[in-house]
Amino acid sequence: MDFSVDSSISSRLSDMHTFVHEQLIPLEPLLLSQQIDTLMPQLDDLRDAVRAQGWWAPNLPASLGGSWRDMVHLGLTSEVLGQTPLGHYVFGCQAPDAGNAELLHLHGNTKQQTEWLKPLAIGDIRSCFAMTEPDTAGSNPTLLACRAKLDGDHWVINGRKWFTTAADGAQLVIVMAVTDPDAAPHQRASMILLPADQSGYRIVRNIPVMGHAGAGYYSHSEVEFTDCRVPAENLLGGRGQGFALAQARLGPGRIQHCMRWLGIARRAIDEACRYTSKRQIRSDQMLSDQQTIRTWLAESEASLQAAKTLVLKTAWRLDHEPTKAVRPDISMIKFLTADVLQKVVDRCLQMHGALGVTDDRILAFFYREERAARIYDGPDEVHKQSLAKHMLAAHASSEHSG
Amino acid sequence: MDFSVDSSISSRLSDMHTFVHEQLIPLEPLLLSQQIDTLMPQLDDLRDAVRAQGWWAPNLPASLGGSWRDMVHLGLTSEVLGQTPLGHYVFGCQAPDAGNAELLHLHGNTKQQTEWLKPLAIGDIRSCFAMTEPDTAGSNPTLLACRAKLDGDHWVINGRKWFTTAADGAQLVIVMAVTDPDAAPHQRASMILLPADQSGYRIVRNIPVMGHAGAGYYSHSEVEFTDCRVPAENLLGGRGQGFALAQARLGPGRIQHCMRWLGIARRAIDEACRYTSKRQIRSDQMLSDQQTIRTWLAESEASLQAAKTLVLKTAWRLDHEPTKAVRPDISMIKFLTADVLQKVVDRCLQMHGALGVTDDRILAFFYREERAARIYDGPDEVHKQSLAKHMLAAHASSEHSG
Amino acid sequence: MDFSVDSSISSRLSDMHTFVHEQLIPLEPLLLSQQIDTLMPQLDDLRDAVRAQGWWAPNLPASLGGSWRDMVHLGLTSEVLGQTPLGHYVFGCQAPDAGNAELLHLHGNTKQQTEWLKPLAIGDIRSCFAMTEPDTAGSNPTLLACRAKLDGDHWVINGRKWFTTAADGAQLVIVMAVTDPDAAPHQRASMILLPADQSGYRIVRNIPVMGHAGAGYYSHSEVEFTDCRVPAENLLGGRGQGFALAQARLGPGRIQHCMRWLGIARRAIDEACRYTSKRQIRSDQMLSDQQTIRTWLAESEASLQAAKTLVLKTAWRLDHEPTKAVRPDISMIKFLTADVLQKVVDRCLQMHGALGVTDDRILAFFYREERAARIYDGPDEVHKQSLAKHMLAAHASSEHSG
Amino acid sequence: MDFSVDSSISSRLSDMHTFVHEQLIPLEPLLLSQQIDTLMPQLDDLRDAVRAQGWWAPNLPASLGGSWRDMVHLGLTSEVLGQTPLGHYVFGCQAPDAGNAELLHLHGNTKQQTEWLKPLAIGDIRSCFAMTEPDTAGSNPTLLACRAKLDGDHWVINGRKWFTTAADGAQLVIVMAVTDPDAAPHQRASMILLPADQSGYRIVRNIPVMGHAGAGYYSHSEVEFTDCRVPAENLLGGRGQGFALAQARLGPGRIQHCMRWLGIARRAIDEACRYTSKRQIRSDQMLSDQQTIRTWLAESEASLQAAKTLVLKTAWRLDHEPTKAVRPDISMIKFLTADVLQKVVDRCLQMHGALGVTDDRILAFFYREERAARIYDGPDEVHKQSLAKHMLAAHASSEHSG
Repeated sequence: MDFSVDSSISSRLSDMHTFVHEQLIPLEPLLLSQQIDTLMPQLDDLRDAVRAQGWWAPNLPASLGGSWRDMVHLGLTSEVLGQTPLGHYVFGCQAPDAGNAELLHLHGNTKQQTEWLKPLAIGDIRSCFAMTEPDTAGSNPTLLACRAKLDGDHWVINGRKWFTTAADGAQLVIVMAVTDPDAAPHQRASMILLPADQSGYRIVRNIPVMGHAGAGYYSHSEVEFTDCRVPAENLLGGRGQGFALAQARLGPGRIQHCMRWLGIARRAIDEACRYTSKRQIRSDQMLSDQQTIRTWLAESEASLQAAKTLVLKTAWRLDHEPTKAVRPDISMIKFLTADVLQKVVDRCLQMHGALGVTDDRILAFFYREERAARIYDGPDEVHKQSLAKHMLAAHASSEHSG
Repeated sequence: MDFSVDSSISSRLSDMHTFVHEQLIPLEPLLLSQQIDTLMPQLDDLRDAVRAQGWWAPNLPASLGGSWRDMVHLGLTSEVLGQTPLGHYVFGCQAPDAGNAELLHLHGNTKQQTEWLKPLAIGDIRSCFAMTEPDTAGSNPTLLACRAKLDGDHWVINGRKWFTTAADGAQLVIVMAVTDPDAAPHQRASMILLPADQSGYRIVRNIPVMGHAGAGYYSHSEVEFTDCRVPAENLLGGRGQGFALAQARLGPGRIQHCMRWLGIARRAIDEACRYTSKRQIRSDQMLSDQQTIRTWLAESEASLQAAKTLVLKTAWRLDHEPTKAVRPDISMIKFLTADVLQKVVDRCLQMHGALGVTDDRILAFFYREERAARIYDGPDEVHKQSLAKHMLAAHASSEHSG
Repeated sequence: MDFSVDSSISSRLSDMHTFVHEQLIPLEPLLLSQQIDTLMPQLDDLRDAVRAQGWWAPNLPASLGGSWRDMVHLGLTSEVLGQTPLGHYVFGCQAPDAGNAELLHLHGNTKQQTEWLKPLAIGDIRSCFAMTEPDTAGSNPTLLACRAKLDGDHWVINGRKWFTTAADGAQLVIVMAVTDPDAAPHQRASMILLPADQSGYRIVRNIPVMGHAGAGYYSHSEVEFTDCRVPAENLLGGRGQGFALAQARLGPGRIQHCMRWLGIARRAIDEACRYTSKRQIRSDQMLSDQQTIRTWLAESEASLQAAKTLVLKTAWRLDHEPTKAVRPDISMIKFLTADVLQKVVDRCLQMHGALGVTDDRILAFFYREERAARIYDGPDEVHKQSLAKHMLAAHASSEHSG
Repeated sequence: MDFSVDSSISSRLSDMHTFVHEQLIPLEPLLLSQQIDTLMPQLDDLRDAVRAQGWWAPNLPASLGGSWRDMVHLGLTSEVLGQTPLGHYVFGCQAPDAGNAELLHLHGNTKQQTEWLKPLAIGDIRSCFAMTEPDTAGSNPTLLACRAKLDGDHWVINGRKWFTTAADGAQLVIVMAVTDPDAAPHQRASMILLPADQSGYRIVRNIPVMGHAGAGYYSHSEVEFTDCRVPAENLLGGRGQGFALAQARLGPGRIQHCMRWLGIARRAIDEACRYTSKRQIRSDQMLSDQQTIRTWLAESEASLQAAKTLVLKTAWRLDHEPTKAVRPDISMIKFLTADVLQKVVDRCLQMHGALGVTDDRILAFFYREERAARIYDGPDEVHKQSLAKHMLAAHASSEHSG
């Protein structure tokens, strides 16, 4: 075992940390006050700075313009970037583009890669991923309602999706639709690519989430497909492979998400240290002198460190083992980290008192926006069932063999 | 002991419940989408309907146009109204006007009552209460920075306040300022009345809270007093009695708040029952058939019922005992109920999945807006210390006597 | 509503409290050190004192020598007695005799009442209740394995039971056995009475629980029925009514248990106040000056008071409504109170530091012995499902009608 | 980073695991039923088997007969051994002998090592460590009451200690006593060695803990020093270095304890998988099919894995960094792991239903005996304060420099 981080990596992470704190965090007030139109051009300028540093797209290989090394490196980077909601976008590894680019890289054909992956990877276009539906439970694939029927050499797509993150302003849509309704449950759906200006596709609305409909990259849309005709060749990967691809997409994505969440928790704790150290509550006492504050800081730090070490171990295993072997762990870190995130943010907000619920600080943003962490990518409850199922099966087989 | 509610009261509460669900809840989308200018006139119309029913101002006596009976009745009413964020306003018992009217009723002189209490009680004007300061810890009165100096027959007020709820559009301001800096710590401050158009007083901004600065009644302001001159006779109650009055103001207010919170929890559970009963997750299963959902519903209900019964007991005691004897219980129900509120809302949101974080439902609003419950009126942590101090003192005296 | 306790009752409870603290608590070390043979004669002497005070058997009517008034009175008494593990026995209302006497009182025929109820009620004999089985899940009645077959005018019983509390030394056994295996699931079992010296019945062992097999009243046995022949007339209540009787038996028992648990929690908090007030941790500080200690005391008290008020409300409802209407509440208070009990005892033990895990104090006894509270009388998890089922059904019917 | 375990180590751990499960676990019923006199000779035989395998004393160097490699190896071994309360004793690395041997190894002079360390390391004698006092708070060293005065060339020791683990049957006593009452607080105490048959030293009693006084190795004593005279040369390490030595002793001890606790948690989860998989609750359902059971298994596993990875990281850091740099982490893993331990054991006990509280299974033993984990070696609350203090100091210095 070796828990050390290579010094060249450490130094790189430290530079990124400085960049995040000096260049990005000062722009957060624009996001908090919903001035997204003012914010985006500034973020786009900062993307150039990131490219110049060789930090662009840590999730993509150099051949695509990215700075991929391995999953552990991606995780460590994601933690640094996660300290601000602006981080991943500026570094070109924001969801859902990151996952979409990975999909196209692994499963796209040459034409698809030339047309879509190249501009996506370098940040010239944005994309969205339309899977979740308002009227069916995402945890049960057999309920998926969106249909694509082959009509000659075109797919005709009909259906409604929501929580299609960043659809507003995206040029590329990847839609998951049932193409083979009579196949085995997990082989019914396929992924299909379409340009966002395709007729028959439209954004119904940006869904108001926690008080804001948002705009552009910072939004989630409800979208509709009405007799939307797409060339048959726009199929991504094999027919009926939709769920397999979606599953595979989650591995690296999970590491990114979990480490991003831990970056948020890190930021929250640091903010709480800073604020409580300077908040006077008696002539001879700072808020940070209170036993309760210290208890919360310590519990927050311990839970963060434990989760972080486990997520990095999982990242390392993804670097060295087949994804399938690591799947139970990918479920495990999801619900573990989402729980740490919420508890840490909640405590750190409380330590700020009334200031904590205002948008003068970042805590209230994290509190409301990241509540979804326990829900998206499969609710925590579903991941717990998956992990337990695996545990019980492993136990049964060890009993038999033992 | 008798836990029954008089049938005339039950029937009245049932009518209010119907009114709330049929007339108020349908207007919530206007609040959720920040269309406050469209909302307010409709609420003002509904206030007339409330007056016509004899339901107006359950916290104020008939002599002031209210429908006060006793504290238990106020609590039960507040639970019904709390089921929507529109309830208390429409029934004329919204914070901070409710507390301010109670203050003026108990401590105002005839002139103050004629000028301010009368229009406030009937809902012709609104008021605000400027106590909390951005730079001093509210839990420590000796730190209060806002000063009022007597200059001839005028107070000259200088200071900055925030979280002055509903200051935007209020006609009356009650400000807490240090008038006697050399007195004993709890006798340094006084309350002073002023009209909102008084020169030297201004609203600096509506504080953005959980993503919104809000407007009108639904906002919290930062306000500033700069050499603001107010006639000496505008003192409310005695000089140096500011903290005593603020403390007394909290008793009935606490019952209202706690029962309002439990009304929210009630609404959240009912919404969760409704949604999970209709959300299909398998061909033969609704979401409400899941064991985890049922566990959450049961735990939520039990915690709500326990808190509710205790709050009503505390209300009953306030009806029959001196406030001072009930003070530890007033602290106890504050932190107990705030905890129930947050946990219940969190669970019910989770039961809604992705829908839960959208503004298509009320859960996300409760989740973010009511997070402050653990902070305002004294953070829960402070109330826990107060209760424990009382317990230890009571224990010590029983040991001595026993 | 009226939350007051009649002053004659208060005064009576206060006298009992003094008796418990002066006469019973000093004997606890004998129980903690397993000197049960030395303990029991002293307890039996104290029973006479209780009878002399008119306090005997608060769960049974005067006609049987008891001091029953109503359920609220029983609850309040049980809280006082629960402060020591010796209380209920000395007051003649200990499980399982209390429940068994109630069964015989309500469902026994004259002969059964004369022969068994009379001596049981006055404390001349003890009894046990053999329902739970080691190999079948108690939560599912259709799995019950113990069989009684009618052979002429005798039942022939075969089966194995465990957690038969206080079987060691009991003269009367009430056994639950399947008499009608082909009936509807809840109508298969019946209750049958037998003397403990009946051939074919034997105690296999006292089960070691949390380190001790115990003895006499303070034990739980595994028992066996082997072709055990009992006269047909020993049937208690109607044939096939076993589950109905068992269910009915739980109502008053639940109030007693819950209030006993809250008595334990009360004792634990009082012990923690006492210890932490006297434990010096710095030259100028007692342990009770620590913020964490105070937080724990306050949280413990609040949860206790909330649960207590709700349990008393449920007791009051049992006094005024049919048991069936109160059944969901009886489930609710079970898991709510068991949770309060465990958390309060755990915190109070922790406040005692190393002393807390020793038998020099009562905390460690409560910690280990009362862990079963979350399991017996139906695990908490089962009660949560019951309550939720009721909530969802009530919701559905209100939706239909509303 | 490298999270792999060397295959030779894996294979060795796997062999130990088999040994623990095949040779030790079957002897647990003797411990659970307090047949310690029957148990110990069998354990001593098994020690020979351990020595023969080259597994003896993984905490001590080969020069002392041990099998030390590094801290990570010690941690991994401790997890395997912790799965049974018999493990550490049989492998010769049980507390307090392990820590005492480490003390003598690092700080003993040649005479002390020859006389005491040699037989202790190979398991010929046992030892105890008398530090904790009944009447002073262990968390505050300035309160230590036990005194050793130099009288000529002898220390004269007076004082009372308790929770002196395994004093019953020990040949060597290490006592912590104040030798320099006027020195700086942390330099007042020293450690002194004495043979257990020294006059002036006596075992007052084995303290009954969670229902049992225990015996021999499995006990905790209260001991007394009355004018106990010990040669001056029996000082261990330097005069006034008592606290420094005690602190240093905790580093490796903490790794051992934490990994032992995680071994217990591992065992508990495995037992729960086994039991719930075989417990039928309906004709078509095992207990392990219940959603709640699966949720608990998953949450238990996740918390265990996170804690384990963090403890191993801390062990690795102790292998590569000065102990002082790792001290905050040593505090962190203490309270984190103790919390995981208690929650996992509690849940796994609950999954066993009534069986869980019996001594027919190991869960009830773990539940009661390991409750002390949150108390000994410094209560969790103290460690949280230490960690937070470190965090705030680190934050302050980064602010200054940043």
